[in-house]
Amino acid sequence: MNHAQRLQALGATIEAPLLVSKAPNLRYLTGFTGSSGWMLVKPGGPATFVTDGRYGELAAELVSALPGADLVVYTSGMWDVFRSLVDDLDGVDLEADDVTWQFSDDFERETGVAVTPGTGAVEALRRTKDVDEVAALQSAADAGDSAFSALMQIAEPTLSEEELGWRLIDEMRKAGGRAAGWEPIVAAGAGASIPHYRSGRNPVGDGLLLLDYGCTVEGYHSDMSRTVWLSGEPNAEMARVYRAVAESQEAGLATVAPGVACGAVDEAAREVLRGYGYEEQFLHSTGHGVGLEIHEPPWVRAGNDDALMPGDVITVEPGVYLPGLGGVRIEDMVLVTESGSTILTRSSKEPRAS
Amino acid sequence: MNHAQRLQALGATIEAPLLVSKAPNLRYLTGFTGSSGWMLVKPGGPATFVTDGRYGELAAELVSALPGADLVVYTSGMWDVFRSLVDDLDGVDLEADDVTWQFSDDFERETGVAVTPGTGAVEALRRTKDVDEVAALQSAADAGDSAFSALMQIAEPTLSEEELGWRLIDEMRKAGGRAAGWEPIVAAGAGASIPHYRSGRNPVGDGLLLLDYGCTVEGYHSDMSRTVWLSGEPNAEMARVYRAVAESQEAGLATVAPGVACGAVDEAAREVLRGYGYEEQFLHSTGHGVGLEIHEPPWVRAGNDDALMPGDVITVEPGVYLPGLGGVRIEDMVLVTESGSTILTRSSKEPRAS
Repeated sequence: MNHAQRLQALGATIEAPLLVSKAPNLRYLTGFTGSSGWMLVKPGGPATFVTDGRYGELAAELVSALPGADLVVYTSGMWDVFRSLVDDLDGVDLEADDVTWQFSDDFERETGVAVTPGTGAVEALRRTKDVDEVAALQSAADAGDSAFSALMQIAEPTLSEEELGWRLIDEMRKAGGRAAGWEPIVAAGAGASIPHYRSGRNPVGDGLLLLDYGCTVEGYHSDMSRTVWLSGEPNAEMARVYRAVAESQEAGLATVAPGVACGAVDEAAREVLRGYGYEEQFLHSTGHGVGLEIHEPPWVRAGNDDALMPGDVITVEPGVYLPGLGGVRIEDMVLVTESGSTILTRSSKEPRAS
Repeated sequence: MNHAQRLQALGATIEAPLLVSKAPNLRYLTGFTGSSGWMLVKPGGPATFVTDGRYGELAAELVSALPGADLVVYTSGMWDVFRSLVDDLDGVDLEADDVTWQFSDDFERETGVAVTPGTGAVEALRRTKDVDEVAALQSAADAGDSAFSALMQIAEPTLSEEELGWRLIDEMRKAGGRAAGWEPIVAAGAGASIPHYRSGRNPVGDGLLLLDYGCTVEGYHSDMSRTVWLSGEPNAEMARVYRAVAESQEAGLATVAPGVACGAVDEAAREVLRGYGYEEQFLHSTGHGVGLEIHEPPWVRAGNDDALMPGDVITVEPGVYLPGLGGVRIEDMVLVTESGSTILTRSSKEPRAS
């Protein structure tokens, strides 16, 4: 990953000093993976990375690869560090959607320098994935696919949701993916009517199984959902739900292209469900961007005029949930290209495990 | 877990309406484990839980167990919901160390109701663990111990740090612990000089191995560190470091009792390292509270006058780090009792794997 180039690009974008605090932004700019770090970046690019003693050695290695950047490591007196860093500045932008209300208040009081809400400058750079990032996202998606294939071989009605979730994680790990910060959703039967179900310890049985899971490769996430019947047949209603969701997802995917509004992708998927009379049972939006965060811009939701651009990676994941009966969700990751789109998730969408 | 009683206790404590937003606080009060929820609690206890469609079914089940609480589920128009909820209020406390600066700004603008920084009211209740919570913490600590024993049987010099980390997670899982949101630290040789090292794929070899890991049981964390030589002997310097850290940790543990200032525990551990000439190589504070968060009050650090109380669960984890050579950290969880303390972590502190 070319961190020096990214820092330079940020320096060329911002008009005021920006204190970067959001973990995925720090990782994007420097490779830092610790839980406590900040980087003050000034217009033109000079930057100072600040962390505590736990991460000093790691940060030193990363910052040495960044021309124009230096490092301050503290063991106590964090505010003294910030005070001397911003001493000669008229103001500092903070990442307002990341820092707590308390931090912004404390910062202003402790340093005596005015803070203003930051600009989303790093997120704007992060949205367009470069080739290294697409490769990492594809590897993460591949690990998800590989786990799906493996699970279809080993899934048995006597195993629990939790055990199957664990197998998914283990298979993704064998395929090079690290466990994500969220656990796989493995929901059997009526449990699948809860979009963010928490897996349990009962046997999954031989009916409906909804899977929603992913992993990370170099910090980049995958995210996919499949719904299958392990054996046995869906009843007429659930078979109809499956057909509706599959067509809805297909319609959403077919709409993805540069210049298309995010809201138009949502509407394409939603229109199909409306036609089936299931719009009210579609409890979330159609998708979201994926990258160093599992959920990041652009937001594929109703009314969003934001146009897709080459380099966007988004999910398309309509679902229909019938309380007490079950639910169906199908989700792929898609890369927006110059000429259209490429689906990164390659697992079968057959509703039957085979 | 007695959620109704906790909500009642919170209602009796607060003097103004409080919008609870912090995930562990919501879990403490209701059992909610989703990623998007709020609860507005008014003095005396009446409460409204707010979440989006993804978590509606889960929230309905939990809120039904709370007398005096109701539920609002939205699929869009979050601000409309908040506006009508706080319509008749003079002001609302927000959890200032949790909500983003942007949320606090948006809340005030969108609802027209003044916000003030919240009081840490839920954290104050959470600090004192009840019997159910101590049981969960002990189970989580036990799972960590069980994984340590298992690892000492299977660790071989040819395995990678990452593989050993994975085995720890798997063993904790078999012992009933869920994977924590952070990966085990498994650091071999010189890597152990980085307190928050990220495990790699090279063989660990037969020398120094620093382990720092934990899991959750019902959301409650364990956290433990051990440092061992898989085979072979520490050199004279590292043997001295081990002795210093072991004595330091013993001194810290011996100090833990109700009424003792957190800073006194830190100082007891620090004094030993100072005597060995290693104070400058002790890069962090001595410990922290553990509960629904892996790091929570009380803070066992220099100068903290906060007195320990029965029901506190803290870590005692001094460490010494010699860049390029290696590092040693030993960490236990300790429960403060009426009469003194009980160590929850029971693994051997012998520096030799056996």
